[in-house]
Amino acid sequence: MKIALDAMGGDFGPPNLVAGAVMALREYRHINKLFLVGDSAQIEAELKKHGCNDDRIEITHATQVVDMSDRAWSAVRRKKDSSVSRAVDLVKRGQADAIVTAGHTGAAVAASTIKLRTLPGIDRPGIAAVLPTETNVFVLIDAGANIDARPEHLLQYAFMGSVYSRHVLHYKNPTVGLVSLGDEDVKGTELTKEVFKMLKPSSLNFVGNIEGRHLFEDPVEVVVCDGFVGNVILKTCESIAVAMFQWLKHELMRTAMRKAGGFLARNAIGTIKDKTNYEEYGGSPLLGVNGICIIAHGASTPLATKNALRVAAESIEQQVNPHIVEEIRRYNETTASLEPALR
Amino acid sequence: MKIALDAMGGDFGPPNLVAGAVMALREYRHINKLFLVGDSAQIEAELKKHGCNDDRIEITHATQVVDMSDRAWSAVRRKKDSSVSRAVDLVKRGQADAIVTAGHTGAAVAASTIKLRTLPGIDRPGIAAVLPTETNVFVLIDAGANIDARPEHLLQYAFMGSVYSRHVLHYKNPTVGLVSLGDEDVKGTELTKEVFKMLKPSSLNFVGNIEGRHLFEDPVEVVVCDGFVGNVILKTCESIAVAMFQWLKHELMRTAMRKAGGFLARNAIGTIKDKTNYEEYGGSPLLGVNGICIIAHGASTPLATKNALRVAAESIEQQVNPHIVEEIRRYNETTASLEPALR
Repeated sequence: MKIALDAMGGDFGPPNLVAGAVMALREYRHINKLFLVGDSAQIEAELKKHGCNDDRIEITHATQVVDMSDRAWSAVRRKKDSSVSRAVDLVKRGQADAIVTAGHTGAAVAASTIKLRTLPGIDRPGIAAVLPTETNVFVLIDAGANIDARPEHLLQYAFMGSVYSRHVLHYKNPTVGLVSLGDEDVKGTELTKEVFKMLKPSSLNFVGNIEGRHLFEDPVEVVVCDGFVGNVILKTCESIAVAMFQWLKHELMRTAMRKAGGFLARNAIGTIKDKTNYEEYGGSPLLGVNGICIIAHGASTPLATKNALRVAAESIEQQVNPHIVEEIRRYNETTASLEPALR
Repeated sequence: MKIALDAMGGDFGPPNLVAGAVMALREYRHINKLFLVGDSAQIEAELKKHGCNDDRIEITHATQVVDMSDRAWSAVRRKKDSSVSRAVDLVKRGQADAIVTAGHTGAAVAASTIKLRTLPGIDRPGIAAVLPTETNVFVLIDAGANIDARPEHLLQYAFMGSVYSRHVLHYKNPTVGLVSLGDEDVKGTELTKEVFKMLKPSSLNFVGNIEGRHLFEDPVEVVVCDGFVGNVILKTCESIAVAMFQWLKHELMRTAMRKAGGFLARNAIGTIKDKTNYEEYGGSPLLGVNGICIIAHGASTPLATKNALRVAAESIEQQVNPHIVEEIRRYNETTASLEPALR
């Protein structure tokens, strides 16, 4: 398999991204080719630091970078030679099977949508983030691709999230919940009430509205919401997890007894810390585009980059896209066959 | 001071609420009168259990309860003798200074808005939830009162949150952040972009857009968002905090060494647990109505109820409402005096 890595994006740029690429190539022998897209001088310098001359690497020079202050869609149109655009081009031309980027999320969404187009039956792509529960994980979709969501977009997210959950996370019949203000059907915005009406009669294992407080207690397997809300959930979870470990660390330093306790309990604390560490998850697939695009964390470390490349490899293997197309086709057929009065 | 407690609301009804009332009366001598509003037989039975015959208690009988499945605004119109409506009536008639309810949030918002009206210059009330950071707390407004927010509502929330932060939490010049998708000005929904434009030139200490990930790392003192997003943030924080302590507890039980560590570190863990425990905060004021209404947690324990009554007492003492009216009046004057071209 062949992966194109946007080597310029993210808060830390080439140093972290190239280091992650080198780690991934050492660990994942089934990556046959890794395109490193960006400023070739910088990329070469980083590769040199690691003493890496793996012949599976191919540098694709790109002269521009999308900045965090750029507007997503215009950046794709104006900066034609940006690293993210060039990486997507490699997928478009069939030279790569997937792209991975830690750069401007909006630009990655825009470039993928413009160049690769959406899958048949899908209007807007959505980011599927994977979050931990005590014993497992759930999919949160959309985690930030589409902030002007219409009801049919959220319906499509529910289908895409279910397919991902079944084929990549191996849940048999994943439960689907809609983020709202309360469990009751009557609660929510105009958007969520519309989506509720569409999800209820669908073939999905829809359990109804869920609140933020149900995310980790008695969790569902697919959590559906618009991109603004999903992004807030994702970032809030990261933030509070990091904060709590810091608070705990400081509290554990206060007395000798606590220090001893922290030392004895270090593996227990470490297990939870790893579970809530986004670096372990690496990246989130942008579902619904006709290709594979993995959105890595903006603050990606080498470890996070390596794991984002692993997620890309898994996505290539699992062939999620044909399953999405099939499920949406079946839904549309069923809906179309209903009496107009029932629709 | 006189407080009206909706004794029927919440997931657990009279047992927890009356127990909390009894705790509060023992602890807070400056509560001169506590109305317990609801089914008098049930309330009397609960008081009897606690052997409480405090003469500051006055039971106000109400025959109805707003259910969680009721629609907020119609419940207020249809169930005229509900406990929450009767409690608000006591404030309206000047018999009580504040109400506390753990019932249907939407009904509490609707009853307060309909009966007490909003303050001059305020279009919609907002719930100001107080959340912990490592060393302090911040105000999240709106935490769920208004899910159809317009830009001017969020502007008013920013002012109300700042007033609350200054007068109740004693921040001198509280920093205000707007929840969006990234720190950059160009990011966000149509709503947040509009609000950004209004906040930037205002007299508030506005620091710009913030993401969920900034809530607990380098936090601002007032976090502004619409009620849907705010409710999701609040409930997600509660959910993940509870989940992480459960995970930690289970991990600490796995080996004898970890158990010993957990025992030695129990005070450190307990400190963080208390910090993130909503019961300690008790309730959130509904700011912007012409009166004082404290929204307690639906799953209120006796301790949470007691603390919600404490928040009500503090709100009565601090006289937040006149300050809100004054700040909004000044903002409107300044804006009106600007050249039309600059508005």
